[in-house]
Amino acid sequence: MHVTAQELCNYLNGKLEGNPNAVVNRPAKIEEGEYGTVSFIAHPKYEDYAYTTQASVLLVSHDFKPEKPVTATLIRVENVYACVGTLLQKFNGRKYRNEGVDSQASVHSTADIADNVSVGAFCYIGSNTKIGSGSVIYPQVFLGDNVVIGENVILYPGVRILHDCKIGDHTIIHSNTVIGSDGFGFSPNGDGTYSKIPQIGHVVVGKGVEIGANNVIDRATMGATQIKDGVKLDNLIQVAHNVEVGQNTVIAAQTGIAGSTKIGNNCMIGGQVGFVGHIEVADGSKIQAQSGVARSIKEEGKAWHGSPAFAYNSFMRSQVVFRKLPEMAKQIAALEAKLASLTTKD
Amino acid sequence: MHVTAQELCNYLNGKLEGNPNAVVNRPAKIEEGEYGTVSFIAHPKYEDYAYTTQASVLLVSHDFKPEKPVTATLIRVENVYACVGTLLQKFNGRKYRNEGVDSQASVHSTADIADNVSVGAFCYIGSNTKIGSGSVIYPQVFLGDNVVIGENVILYPGVRILHDCKIGDHTIIHSNTVIGSDGFGFSPNGDGTYSKIPQIGHVVVGKGVEIGANNVIDRATMGATQIKDGVKLDNLIQVAHNVEVGQNTVIAAQTGIAGSTKIGNNCMIGGQVGFVGHIEVADGSKIQAQSGVARSIKEEGKAWHGSPAFAYNSFMRSQVVFRKLPEMAKQIAALEAKLASLTTKD
Amino acid sequence: MHVTAQELCNYLNGKLEGNPNAVVNRPAKIEEGEYGTVSFIAHPKYEDYAYTTQASVLLVSHDFKPEKPVTATLIRVENVYACVGTLLQKFNGRKYRNEGVDSQASVHSTADIADNVSVGAFCYIGSNTKIGSGSVIYPQVFLGDNVVIGENVILYPGVRILHDCKIGDHTIIHSNTVIGSDGFGFSPNGDGTYSKIPQIGHVVVGKGVEIGANNVIDRATMGATQIKDGVKLDNLIQVAHNVEVGQNTVIAAQTGIAGSTKIGNNCMIGGQVGFVGHIEVADGSKIQAQSGVARSIKEEGKAWHGSPAFAYNSFMRSQVVFRKLPEMAKQIAALEAKLASLTTKD
Repeated sequence: MHVTAQELCNYLNGKLEGNPNAVVNRPAKIEEGEYGTVSFIAHPKYEDYAYTTQASVLLVSHDFKPEKPVTATLIRVENVYACVGTLLQKFNGRKYRNEGVDSQASVHSTADIADNVSVGAFCYIGSNTKIGSGSVIYPQVFLGDNVVIGENVILYPGVRILHDCKIGDHTIIHSNTVIGSDGFGFSPNGDGTYSKIPQIGHVVVGKGVEIGANNVIDRATMGATQIKDGVKLDNLIQVAHNVEVGQNTVIAAQTGIAGSTKIGNNCMIGGQVGFVGHIEVADGSKIQAQSGVARSIKEEGKAWHGSPAFAYNSFMRSQVVFRKLPEMAKQIAALEAKLASLTTKD
Repeated sequence: MHVTAQELCNYLNGKLEGNPNAVVNRPAKIEEGEYGTVSFIAHPKYEDYAYTTQASVLLVSHDFKPEKPVTATLIRVENVYACVGTLLQKFNGRKYRNEGVDSQASVHSTADIADNVSVGAFCYIGSNTKIGSGSVIYPQVFLGDNVVIGENVILYPGVRILHDCKIGDHTIIHSNTVIGSDGFGFSPNGDGTYSKIPQIGHVVVGKGVEIGANNVIDRATMGATQIKDGVKLDNLIQVAHNVEVGQNTVIAAQTGIAGSTKIGNNCMIGGQVGFVGHIEVADGSKIQAQSGVARSIKEEGKAWHGSPAFAYNSFMRSQVVFRKLPEMAKQIAALEAKLASLTTKD
Repeated sequence: MHVTAQELCNYLNGKLEGNPNAVVNRPAKIEEGEYGTVSFIAHPKYEDYAYTTQASVLLVSHDFKPEKPVTATLIRVENVYACVGTLLQKFNGRKYRNEGVDSQASVHSTADIADNVSVGAFCYIGSNTKIGSGSVIYPQVFLGDNVVIGENVILYPGVRILHDCKIGDHTIIHSNTVIGSDGFGFSPNGDGTYSKIPQIGHVVVGKGVEIGANNVIDRATMGATQIKDGVKLDNLIQVAHNVEVGQNTVIAAQTGIAGSTKIGNNCMIGGQVGFVGHIEVADGSKIQAQSGVARSIKEEGKAWHGSPAFAYNSFMRSQVVFRKLPEMAKQIAALEAKLASLTTKD
């Protein structure tokens, strides 16, 4: 695809400075901007690249004031970061060949698959399972019995959705993620052994959700583990039985949420965070990476850090002192010695 | 399935209070208890729900003394939590259609599969591999060469068991777990590069084990990585080569155990814990979530916390002071100032 | 396979002491050394086993001076650990039956597969995808469109390599690892919801790389996520979009690297480490397990620990004091009391 700077500028509702006929064929990061690419400066720390980049076109904000000459054609826009998304959409060539249900898929006779659905080779579709219009099921996916897949869902290769689970419209699930494995529930028998507690619930994933690769979302013991509309989960995340993740909450990779915990709406959760079970986390909470949340969080919109986690600012202040602990120990010893000598002197 | 309160009471060996003819069709958590459900109070903190729940039947302990009127029929039992397991078993409708070996499975001619075994579509069964009576191999499972699967084993979709590994009777392995991938062993060549150390051992999983989804258990360099009888592993757990996990030990999600470490029997290990390699952890150890165990633990039955981990109570006491470090730094500065002025005065 | 001590000695360029005709059929760890096995002492802490082992042959270093009689035939070598690798290679019986492209694989008509390649049952090979000579693709692997697999690559069952990704020669990827899932990029819409930023880049994996099981390496937003030659990744590792991992860097299990971070060459990174996004880590850095790297590391070859991480030695010194914090708090209180009484006395 070849596009002129002027065409891009119109497409992005920007303001052009420079050669409107410059031609680009793909977007590139500013460090990798070659002739024929369109690049962008979404953060001031990258501004220096503006003067050296080979990119033919550069998206910048209205505020950008070059301190040196810039050879690229500039397109000034309101929100550079948002425009990058629009730009990538324009250049996104990904197409899945819709070839209906592959002859090498195994589809139960009672499954109900809408007309314009792709089901790839080596998919297994169980009894009474429904797949809504426009959905793309890549090869090698497993859908158990009584599964409901909404419309325009994308399931990448190796996704496993066990019996009775539901996936909402426009949701995307990446490769090798497991939805509806048994919750981790055992009752001790008194002799050291455990008996399995059957997990007879399911998982309900809302609309417009994106779930990364190699995640696990366990089914509820009874009732439903719930991932609400608009949630974004990164990779390798653990969601235990009966957990609820509130609308539009975003969770980075390798975080784990123990059983029955409820995460509020619009939370931002870093990577490798752990939540103990049976707690509630207020809407808008921000949890720093690697934190361990051991208690319910009741105040909305606050930032937390540490393991066990407490208020972000307090943690950072404690952490600064932590680095000086050996020095502090010496100060105390010195004080004790001084005071002892003082007392002796007295 | 519809059951009367009296039938449930008999089934659970309980004591009934209220309407013996109340009918229920499924279990529900107390917060979600609707008309026609049987719910339960397994922990005092949920007692308030007893007075407002719409559940038709309620399991409670013999000790439960209602402070307000309860409309549900009560079934009093010795151990509510254990009875919930029994109850779920009664309502557990999960059935896998035993259809023998699917025509779309790839089974090597030398594989030895007992008569009443299910092997789903798109399974690959290698040479000389044995599957014992009553086992259910869901679709899309891989069993390499010389694998031994015991009796009444359940392998969920996407499980990969590489060559030479053994799985004991009554063991359950959830989706996309990998057993027998190569241990992580390399020897440095002196020029910065590494040579692979062949991993010629295998993995032996005992009886009555449950292994969650997306776990990885690497094969031993030589000999066996061992998961002993009755072990319960949650999801996304890493077990490195030559590790041993002792009988009835329970490990929560996202924990990792480095090479050659031996975890004792009856341990309880939280989520996101890390163990360094080549250590031993005594029987009955309790490791708090997110701890890092960097040394062998010799005393049995103790609790540990922190990274590096030390005695749980000590950690918690240190952690309390950690939060006050900035204040403590000020106290020391004040002491120094005071003492300096005192000395000057002198 | 049966080998005499003399044959082994010649094979390893060692120096023999004892019976040159002792016969062994497999290697064993020293704790498990039985009659007919060859074992080794690679670390002084295992020396005591030399006097009690039943192993028929023992590899030891030239420095080893037995303090008691040893019954095993000794083979003295320069570098025991390296010889163990050579030894395991000799006994490594793993063979994949090269059976060409399985009739139950789904291969697009435009795929370009070299002659002596194995493609197992239930593999899906997309359009324009190339597989180089000598590569082994185990069953149930997914290769999307325009994928390039080099020569002598091994892909274990359940590996998913999405469109446009490239894998270098002699690289090994273990089961259920995902390469080329979408990077985690969303732009906020202002009303709490997010829009997906298309991820139109890819992943480039170098030569001689080994990637463990259940890893995830996301594709770049634009450009490439890069795993350079000779990198070794353990299991369950997260590599976000646009990350670069430098040559011969070794990363232990469950570590996560956030977007656009560049890890240098020859780094050694422990398990469960987290790296924030957009930082650079100097060549030769050593990061202790469970650390959280929150800033760029500019000095080469240093060791780091903690979350947030700082210099390893400093961390360890602070950690020692951390354990004494409750005592320290008492010391300060005592100092304050003493000083107060002193001041009063004055």
